[in-house]
Amino acid sequence: MTAKRVAIIGAGPSGLAQLRAFQSARQNGEDIPKIVCFEKQDDWGGLWNYTWRTGLDIHGEPVHSSMYRYLWSNGPKEGLEFADYSFEEHFGKQIASYPPRAVLFDYIEGRVKKADVRDWIRFNTPVRNVRYNAADGTFIVTAHDHLKDSTYEETFDHVICASGHFSTPNVPYYEGFEDFNGRILHAHDFRDAREFEGKDLLILGASYSAEDIGSQCWKYGAKSITTSYRSAPMGFDWPDNWDEVPGLVKVDGNTAYFKDGTSRHVDAIILCTGYKHFFNFLPDDLRLKTSNRLAAADLYKGVVFVNNPKMFYLGMQDQWFTFNMFDAQAWWVRDAIMGKIEIPSDINTLKADVADRIAREDAAVGDKGAIQYQGDYVQELIAETDYPSFDVQGACEAFFAWKNHKKEAIMEFRNKSYKSVITGTMAPAHHTPWNEALDDSLESYLQDDVLSKTA
Amino acid sequence: MTAKRVAIIGAGPSGLAQLRAFQSARQNGEDIPKIVCFEKQDDWGGLWNYTWRTGLDIHGEPVHSSMYRYLWSNGPKEGLEFADYSFEEHFGKQIASYPPRAVLFDYIEGRVKKADVRDWIRFNTPVRNVRYNAADGTFIVTAHDHLKDSTYEETFDHVICASGHFSTPNVPYYEGFEDFNGRILHAHDFRDAREFEGKDLLILGASYSAEDIGSQCWKYGAKSITTSYRSAPMGFDWPDNWDEVPGLVKVDGNTAYFKDGTSRHVDAIILCTGYKHFFNFLPDDLRLKTSNRLAAADLYKGVVFVNNPKMFYLGMQDQWFTFNMFDAQAWWVRDAIMGKIEIPSDINTLKADVADRIAREDAAVGDKGAIQYQGDYVQELIAETDYPSFDVQGACEAFFAWKNHKKEAIMEFRNKSYKSVITGTMAPAHHTPWNEALDDSLESYLQDDVLSKTA
Repeated sequence: MTAKRVAIIGAGPSGLAQLRAFQSARQNGEDIPKIVCFEKQDDWGGLWNYTWRTGLDIHGEPVHSSMYRYLWSNGPKEGLEFADYSFEEHFGKQIASYPPRAVLFDYIEGRVKKADVRDWIRFNTPVRNVRYNAADGTFIVTAHDHLKDSTYEETFDHVICASGHFSTPNVPYYEGFEDFNGRILHAHDFRDAREFEGKDLLILGASYSAEDIGSQCWKYGAKSITTSYRSAPMGFDWPDNWDEVPGLVKVDGNTAYFKDGTSRHVDAIILCTGYKHFFNFLPDDLRLKTSNRLAAADLYKGVVFVNNPKMFYLGMQDQWFTFNMFDAQAWWVRDAIMGKIEIPSDINTLKADVADRIAREDAAVGDKGAIQYQGDYVQELIAETDYPSFDVQGACEAFFAWKNHKKEAIMEFRNKSYKSVITGTMAPAHHTPWNEALDDSLESYLQDDVLSKTA
Repeated sequence: MTAKRVAIIGAGPSGLAQLRAFQSARQNGEDIPKIVCFEKQDDWGGLWNYTWRTGLDIHGEPVHSSMYRYLWSNGPKEGLEFADYSFEEHFGKQIASYPPRAVLFDYIEGRVKKADVRDWIRFNTPVRNVRYNAADGTFIVTAHDHLKDSTYEETFDHVICASGHFSTPNVPYYEGFEDFNGRILHAHDFRDAREFEGKDLLILGASYSAEDIGSQCWKYGAKSITTSYRSAPMGFDWPDNWDEVPGLVKVDGNTAYFKDGTSRHVDAIILCTGYKHFFNFLPDDLRLKTSNRLAAADLYKGVVFVNNPKMFYLGMQDQWFTFNMFDAQAWWVRDAIMGKIEIPSDINTLKADVADRIAREDAAVGDKGAIQYQGDYVQELIAETDYPSFDVQGACEAFFAWKNHKKEAIMEFRNKSYKSVITGTMAPAHHTPWNEALDDSLESYLQDDVLSKTA
């Protein structure tokens, strides 16, 4: 077993969960495979590793992170807490429920610092290519070490793709975009809401990016927000200077025209139109093709690639659950690689599992049904490994409450608190309401109380 | 000879020159190799194929073009005219000397439409990987057909890399960038000067991008332009609201601090800090590594990769000469592949040629010496093939005059005219001075006269 070599692609939340899973087994005295984690950025954290850069990074690679300044978690932290590393363990106290990015980055990092796995990661090293050699059942990974500006090949018994699917933007075209006299950007390139202060902003989309980027721009002084939906409006109780309108038809100069026949002046257009599953380093026989859904295509147990069960994918599902689901997957994949869990050898069995998951997702009703479906999936996986058991249903309940809080007051839901399903402690109220908290730093968030409400 | 297979990577000006070179030989009754040109964009023209997109393209690939709206040629067209296809042949008349992008795109396209080589190009198909198989002396090219979302391998006897080197930005970091409250972008992502109307703009750099993007923003109403240089100012006679200052030290909020101790308020920062030679599809043994200079490293005759003389690079030099130099190179490479020109078999001979070119470039004095050096290079290559001979020295003279015209009046040099070295015809004056011509369309540029100066 110790002779096995495992490549992990990506050191974001999924890849780091995989490192922690193996390290946990080693800590328990087990012989673990040789692990090599390839990371194209110069630090870990994946999407949570903020950069001011857009487009291409310092090495000429596509920028991975899609996060922006002032981003706070858009769901309660009680829905994503690590079962083996609570917020209270990390921060020495319970903290409020919707931390800004820097606080969550610190939390993610805390666990892997404690696990001491940084040496397993090769930073500044994108994977260029993976080939499967059917003759001996190994994978040949081609990587590019940017610090040496040198490429090399290495052989592995397993590849775990944990490169995420919120980095490659899906960017639609509308008539007139080539002549629009302002900035058109995808959410992936959005960085600082203050750039749009005093502007009339058009946002295309009706999902999390549209809601959150619109809310940010509202908070930091945009003149007006218009969100344009294709199928249905988000339907929240928006501020007075925020309108939801039907689909965009075209732009002409700085005028945007919509399907209901209305038009309005816009200064900038932000395309919150989603992301692609994009793996330009994988050939057809290893490349996952799936829509962004809870039951991803071609993944047995949501992680084993049915067309080559020696290859695994982490976190490729659409997500209510995040860090804790990646953990559930990573522990399961670890045990499959280490022979503690058997993967059926018949591809039809694997495919039947996928079909069953798709059918069950399709049968789930509404957001509540979807949350419960994914909670049940997390429960299913953790029951099969030694990942610390936790109250998954309690996390589902936190999500149900969150959905209601958003319906009640979309600009105030982040002021709510929830109870940890790991430690049982209720989160404190944050010291400042979200719409008044302009400083998103870790230091500001963690102080116990503030004299000025605006910190 | 007809059994040979040649891969061309890129269908921009260099790649298209190569297609035209082979088509020209076929037209003369010669047997030519099988040609496959891989192009990641959905159309030809390379940098000249304008897109409103920034960052990643519709397929998730890095956007190739670095051009922007309202771009006019920044050198006289008389310095780049095809010897086998004059502007007069294409447009049916002589036209003014500094055409906008759309006019030059039309001209480039006209020649290859006439040559009828579009079928040789596989569009929407980036090359993912090239491997050299020393056992049989062939190249295995892995390509990704985005329309089918499918990858495949194909074998070639030669690879000609014509993928350009003005697409992957070199993006420096300065203290405070992560907290700057405005847009920071590289020239590669600049699209519409009107976005910066009324703004205080900081531009880093002292080369063509800084000069041209600054001029655009001035023309379209920026409040002020500040260009910051590292080694020396551009030193033109700038408009009143344009200052040149020494290197940037840091930004703090919206204040920029410079090496001379001064500081100023800036709303946006444009990094005109150059481009990288970037070939993420090539392994170490095939990958060119060179600085951006006239005598590129490791290229015998400026085109043959010394470490593997079956591999060629086009247009990898820094450039005064462009389209006509790519032609000179493409005809030469064609004849080398077709056995009409012999490449020395001794690598030391190849390296001695490179060393000699570097020494001669280093000995050239000033811009005039550099222009003459590159003119001599073009002359050297075309003397060895059947590319139509033309007055290269006349093109050098046009460049010399252009440099003087810029020194005389930086916002007026595009109103000057030069004589074609292909047809001998003097270019007419353009109907509208550049700073008053806000419409950059082909139709506007080509009309013989206009009633209103602003068309």
